[in-house]
Amino acid sequence: MASIDLNSDVGESFGRWTLGDDNAMFQSVSSANVACGFHAGDPTVIRTTCQQAAEAGVVIGAHVGYRDLAGFGRRFLDIDPLELADDVVYQIGALQALAATAGTSVTYVKPHGGLYNAIVKHTAQAQAVVDAVKSVDPTLPILGLPGSEVLRLAEAAGLRAVTEAFADRAYNPDGTLVSRTLPGAVLHDPAEVAEHVLRMATEQSVRAIDGSILNIRAESICVHGDSPGAVAMATAVKSALSDAGVSIGTFV
Amino acid sequence: MASIDLNSDVGESFGRWTLGDDNAMFQSVSSANVACGFHAGDPTVIRTTCQQAAEAGVVIGAHVGYRDLAGFGRRFLDIDPLELADDVVYQIGALQALAATAGTSVTYVKPHGGLYNAIVKHTAQAQAVVDAVKSVDPTLPILGLPGSEVLRLAEAAGLRAVTEAFADRAYNPDGTLVSRTLPGAVLHDPAEVAEHVLRMATEQSVRAIDGSILNIRAESICVHGDSPGAVAMATAVKSALSDAGVSIGTFV
Amino acid sequence: MASIDLNSDVGESFGRWTLGDDNAMFQSVSSANVACGFHAGDPTVIRTTCQQAAEAGVVIGAHVGYRDLAGFGRRFLDIDPLELADDVVYQIGALQALAATAGTSVTYVKPHGGLYNAIVKHTAQAQAVVDAVKSVDPTLPILGLPGSEVLRLAEAAGLRAVTEAFADRAYNPDGTLVSRTLPGAVLHDPAEVAEHVLRMATEQSVRAIDGSILNIRAESICVHGDSPGAVAMATAVKSALSDAGVSIGTFV
Amino acid sequence: MASIDLNSDVGESFGRWTLGDDNAMFQSVSSANVACGFHAGDPTVIRTTCQQAAEAGVVIGAHVGYRDLAGFGRRFLDIDPLELADDVVYQIGALQALAATAGTSVTYVKPHGGLYNAIVKHTAQAQAVVDAVKSVDPTLPILGLPGSEVLRLAEAAGLRAVTEAFADRAYNPDGTLVSRTLPGAVLHDPAEVAEHVLRMATEQSVRAIDGSILNIRAESICVHGDSPGAVAMATAVKSALSDAGVSIGTFV
Repeated sequence: MASIDLNSDVGESFGRWTLGDDNAMFQSVSSANVACGFHAGDPTVIRTTCQQAAEAGVVIGAHVGYRDLAGFGRRFLDIDPLELADDVVYQIGALQALAATAGTSVTYVKPHGGLYNAIVKHTAQAQAVVDAVKSVDPTLPILGLPGSEVLRLAEAAGLRAVTEAFADRAYNPDGTLVSRTLPGAVLHDPAEVAEHVLRMATEQSVRAIDGSILNIRAESICVHGDSPGAVAMATAVKSALSDAGVSIGTFV
Repeated sequence: MASIDLNSDVGESFGRWTLGDDNAMFQSVSSANVACGFHAGDPTVIRTTCQQAAEAGVVIGAHVGYRDLAGFGRRFLDIDPLELADDVVYQIGALQALAATAGTSVTYVKPHGGLYNAIVKHTAQAQAVVDAVKSVDPTLPILGLPGSEVLRLAEAAGLRAVTEAFADRAYNPDGTLVSRTLPGAVLHDPAEVAEHVLRMATEQSVRAIDGSILNIRAESICVHGDSPGAVAMATAVKSALSDAGVSIGTFV
Repeated sequence: MASIDLNSDVGESFGRWTLGDDNAMFQSVSSANVACGFHAGDPTVIRTTCQQAAEAGVVIGAHVGYRDLAGFGRRFLDIDPLELADDVVYQIGALQALAATAGTSVTYVKPHGGLYNAIVKHTAQAQAVVDAVKSVDPTLPILGLPGSEVLRLAEAAGLRAVTEAFADRAYNPDGTLVSRTLPGAVLHDPAEVAEHVLRMATEQSVRAIDGSILNIRAESICVHGDSPGAVAMATAVKSALSDAGVSIGTFV
Repeated sequence: MASIDLNSDVGESFGRWTLGDDNAMFQSVSSANVACGFHAGDPTVIRTTCQQAAEAGVVIGAHVGYRDLAGFGRRFLDIDPLELADDVVYQIGALQALAATAGTSVTYVKPHGGLYNAIVKHTAQAQAVVDAVKSVDPTLPILGLPGSEVLRLAEAAGLRAVTEAFADRAYNPDGTLVSRTLPGAVLHDPAEVAEHVLRMATEQSVRAIDGSILNIRAESICVHGDSPGAVAMATAVKSALSDAGVSIGTFV
């Protein structure tokens, strides 16, 4: 039976501020990208999220980001790569300790937001992330965009590189994501998203925004958890996969 | 041959700001309390400090504090004990990961500043620190003031409680520290400090501010590293101990 | 015709995190306590909130707090009073500039959360707040609890002291608030809250938790804006006042 | 008699961390760029700095920067221009209030570090800074690099644009600064720096790194205050100017 990993960003609350319904998302996904405190997630939020993930049988990964609470880690920061590597080690270590107290452990690393986007092409920052992960635990896979610098460098460093696709993002015919500044960049219809994911999971392909079909090899599919209809969308995806006989399971 | 541990606060620089001469202090002390990012210490400072400590053969401990960069962790914060415990776990974990990349490891925990002072008497916060340390690694000793709540609770929880004295602080006849708001609270003369430490190390006693001699059992003596004459003072203490045939070595 | 001021905490979003429905609250209140960035509120949130308040004809006040984003300014911080005064000046000035760009201005100061509670009794911190307000603009009134140190000191300094009551909080027979740790401390029924406020506004009294009626002189009544039923409650209060012929208007 | 403005970055301490000897620099410069809390400077540092500047007869400007304490505002941040404008207004307003309590006022704005460098060419961020300054006080001049976007846009908006040169930086023959990554980029010899400044002040020219002389029109010259020999260098510059009959005075 075919199987695919669904991942979602969680643990993004901070202090008084709540974001997303992590517990609901845990019913649909197999992997949880837990914020590590630099762009979101305070220690209590992190530990609680790890406990809930563990109870739901969802594995956790370190969602490492730029140190930028005010910008939620979404803004490019021209940080020195050596400092970035240390920032990444710090975040992974903090999450490892909290995960351990919650009875689980960190099983992969997924860079977040502005960092995720930067290291598609920014070689020095990508290498910094790879160096950081390797120094903490060379068995930790890194999730990233197919064709990105970070995955290329991860493989070169002997790390496992895990390709990722997006459930609710439109693709250009060349396999890149349609820019968020363009109309149609984000899919909002649960049925459309479910069909999108199903094609990714069963045919290793995606229907691009121009209608063409392109090959895409994704070992994990990201389902967003912080939009208004997030839970409904995740539920629709889960149902569609189940109906098609595709099981949801971690890539680890 | 008698032996005593000397500890010092290090890794307290942050970004553009430098504090103390850690490398010089490493020539005199056996244990380094490394800031973990909440009151001081950014990830690059922390990793660099760990590397320097490792090279100098100095063991490191987690100097955990309140989340208060602006106040350097010196101000009491009435934080929920459950959140404090998570904050402490987070900090220890972050330091563990950076220490590992530097080829060393965290061997003890010493609360910092306002937290250190609070948990002399604040039972709930003291228990939170104990719970946090125990959940991360029950073999990690906790350093604290003799007679403090945190050491009492550490022992009750099965953790090793390590008593600490201060090289440059005057004592009241009852064994408490003379308040910093009073004259004579801090010793500035290296010779006087050296004599103070020597008595602590060899006679398990201290000359109080009124001249009386009181018993004090300290397994470690804190030598401050961030005052103007810090390095000279540490060197004087080291010499005095050496002349008296007392070796400097970690309590671990 | 009788008139009463209703105030509410607004501008408490931060970056990616949204809190409360400020625009809806502006339909029911006359005064808006705008967060100033230390416990909540980033500059864009603050400016946007000021614009919305100005459009709704709601006057704004500076909701100054401890520098504690992670704790939302709710935790007591044992800050040096001189530093607290500077922190308060900084926050008021920042809000004044953003308010001016939004076509409005700061007309009062209300301390927030942990600071609000501290300066009921903490004389030194209360004096620091008073000194700060006086140094920025001695015509700015300070809102506080009747009988609090901060109001006593404000008057002693020649500032206007404005007494405040709480729409959804139960009172002890001695006029203090029932502790949030006790059952019944917070009122959740809009009808009950409306009756509570009506009695405050028209009879200068309140029904205490034991059923007794006590006098309370409040020039402003705080209506919370960040609870799930906040908007409904504010609407109920506004209706009840309107039906009773009490107008809602600022104390300024 | 010829006159030139010397400006220096001050108020860059933060909490426990001290940077520079502001009081000493105030003996040599006429304008003080005061950090506003986003990249350096806490409220007490800011107020104290304003008081010292006022006592020394030095005018103050707002040294606004990215919100990045860990990076000291030196790293480019790809912030939304609308948010940047609000951040700048916030910082200017905070400084205005503290300056007023210190008996002085903000007389100009100089962007700091990464922001300063970005708005040489980054039109959208440059426009944001201009918009912010104009909305706070259209009489405030903006300091920047000759030929920069920010000065071009400031003039277009009706603001005064003040050109700045650097006392201790080497220039390329085309008038740009030699990159800090290249040898010789920073001048360390006080005599050489003094000659550099003298030529700028008296001949409106500078000797470039290749020995050629190029015209440079600077209304203000920046003298760094945070390097080890900063005070000695500033003193040498002041002496050289005095010997040449050039007075030091603000451009305002």
